[in-house]
Amino acid sequence: MKNFEVAILGCGSAKPTLRHAPSSQIVSYNSNLYMIDCGEGTQLQFLKNHFKDGKLRHIFISHAHGDHCLGLVGLLSSFALNSRCKEVCIHAPVEFEDIFRKQVDFYIYQHSYDIRFEAIDCDQPALILDEDGLTVTAFPLVHRIPCYGFLFREKMGESHILPECILKYNIPWEVIPRIKSGSDFMTADGQVIPNGVLTTPPLPARSYAYCSDTIPVAAVADWIEGVDLLYHDSTFSNSETDIAERTYHSTAEQAAQVALRCKAGKLILGHFSSRFLLEDEMLQEAMEFFPNTVLATEGLTLRVGE
Amino acid sequence: MKNFEVAILGCGSAKPTLRHAPSSQIVSYNSNLYMIDCGEGTQLQFLKNHFKDGKLRHIFISHAHGDHCLGLVGLLSSFALNSRCKEVCIHAPVEFEDIFRKQVDFYIYQHSYDIRFEAIDCDQPALILDEDGLTVTAFPLVHRIPCYGFLFREKMGESHILPECILKYNIPWEVIPRIKSGSDFMTADGQVIPNGVLTTPPLPARSYAYCSDTIPVAAVADWIEGVDLLYHDSTFSNSETDIAERTYHSTAEQAAQVALRCKAGKLILGHFSSRFLLEDEMLQEAMEFFPNTVLATEGLTLRVGE
Repeated sequence: MKNFEVAILGCGSAKPTLRHAPSSQIVSYNSNLYMIDCGEGTQLQFLKNHFKDGKLRHIFISHAHGDHCLGLVGLLSSFALNSRCKEVCIHAPVEFEDIFRKQVDFYIYQHSYDIRFEAIDCDQPALILDEDGLTVTAFPLVHRIPCYGFLFREKMGESHILPECILKYNIPWEVIPRIKSGSDFMTADGQVIPNGVLTTPPLPARSYAYCSDTIPVAAVADWIEGVDLLYHDSTFSNSETDIAERTYHSTAEQAAQVALRCKAGKLILGHFSSRFLLEDEMLQEAMEFFPNTVLATEGLTLRVGE
Repeated sequence: MKNFEVAILGCGSAKPTLRHAPSSQIVSYNSNLYMIDCGEGTQLQFLKNHFKDGKLRHIFISHAHGDHCLGLVGLLSSFALNSRCKEVCIHAPVEFEDIFRKQVDFYIYQHSYDIRFEAIDCDQPALILDEDGLTVTAFPLVHRIPCYGFLFREKMGESHILPECILKYNIPWEVIPRIKSGSDFMTADGQVIPNGVLTTPPLPARSYAYCSDTIPVAAVADWIEGVDLLYHDSTFSNSETDIAERTYHSTAEQAAQVALRCKAGKLILGHFSSRFLLEDEMLQEAMEFFPNTVLATEGLTLRVGE
């Protein structure tokens, strides 16, 4: 089974604190890294967690608020200092490039590598990356400025052919890929062996969804239904529901309700307000509705689907 | 005597490390704070050191390299989140505003306070701030892009009038300011009392100079002659003189030579390369020429003139 993990680099919110770094995460799939958001100081968190620059080719920015992207220019600039050659693709809301282009042009002044901006602009889920083994879909959230969630979904693998059947039915090697894709097999004497006899089904495809920053969005439950691991905005506690609504954020309980509706496997609460010191209370509030909940913290790494 | 201190918030160089934060310092004079440079993460260092936003009205940026200014937008943005009202003035090389204006306009979106850019563009020392008790002079350094050093100089105070003379010569209170400024005093019976009898001289005016990033500049010794405390670029050790030259930085020994030539009171070495782990060796190299040398480190606070 391929490695599929999420590492939290930062789970604080707008006001800086000494408890949490601003938003950033690394999704590892197979040997590739994908960054979601890049708040100030992310490059140090990246270093601390011993991730390698060269394995990161895609950065997904949920929205242009500073706590989600003000570490980007520093990170890209350090890549240049490290003599990077590989392109970096920044997937971000459509207005993002205009705000960052000038600095990116100035600070990546050696132009040792290319930086490509891919604009996200959709009101329904849209496939924004299709790689070997993994797709990334962006979907609209509801925040004070355009903001998107991201669904990382492993592609369904092939069936596994049973080695004993290869011997028993004398299956030639060039036919094996077709059988793995679902075909039956006809033996030399014309007997048809059904695919179900020859193979075991592929492992279930795993998925991870990132939903921050946002109020709870009803449609999200359909868009990410059955997601194995969900990170959801949980900026405030129940006692601050009015502030959450006013600032277009969610409470811990609202995050749990989203997890419940989309039948998530596990919920990570994050994007904690600088005002709220008692994160354990938020955890309790969420667990009343969705027991398999954990608090994000810098350095936390979770395997998707476990 | 008024408080005059320098606190190091960061003394690393271009490549981020877990040992040092990128360049930033706070000069405290009386009850005001002045920031020099603002690398990524400076706002956290500012918080860690318990400095108060409201006391900071001037930020001096030596040059536009990222390790000296990529924390600026985050800092200014957090000031807005803290409902700041007071203006902030950014003193920076002339090209700086163009690189940062777009982000400053976007991120200080609530416009709760004004941000003023003051361009520095000089080939000789130029007074850029004249406040009650303190002046700041910018002077050109020699780096890969336009770069300036800063000299913080306390204004010479007034003489101190001797209380016993006030009684002895029956000096009216309204005459005291003139005597403090240097006038003699004529008694009721026409006797002239020389100023030197009535007063003791003011305390010597103290000064602090920041010289980073730069190769050693001969003229600097004249411009900051007699400075009490000098922070100088010391990116490399003696064994890396060729890299220092190629990248327009200084070695520890070169920093010491500048301190010696300008008759500084004390030298702080800083802007340490990520390549060089043995800062104690650099300290030894500098102390051979200028014994009163210390290594910068995050959190170090030195009183100017002690």
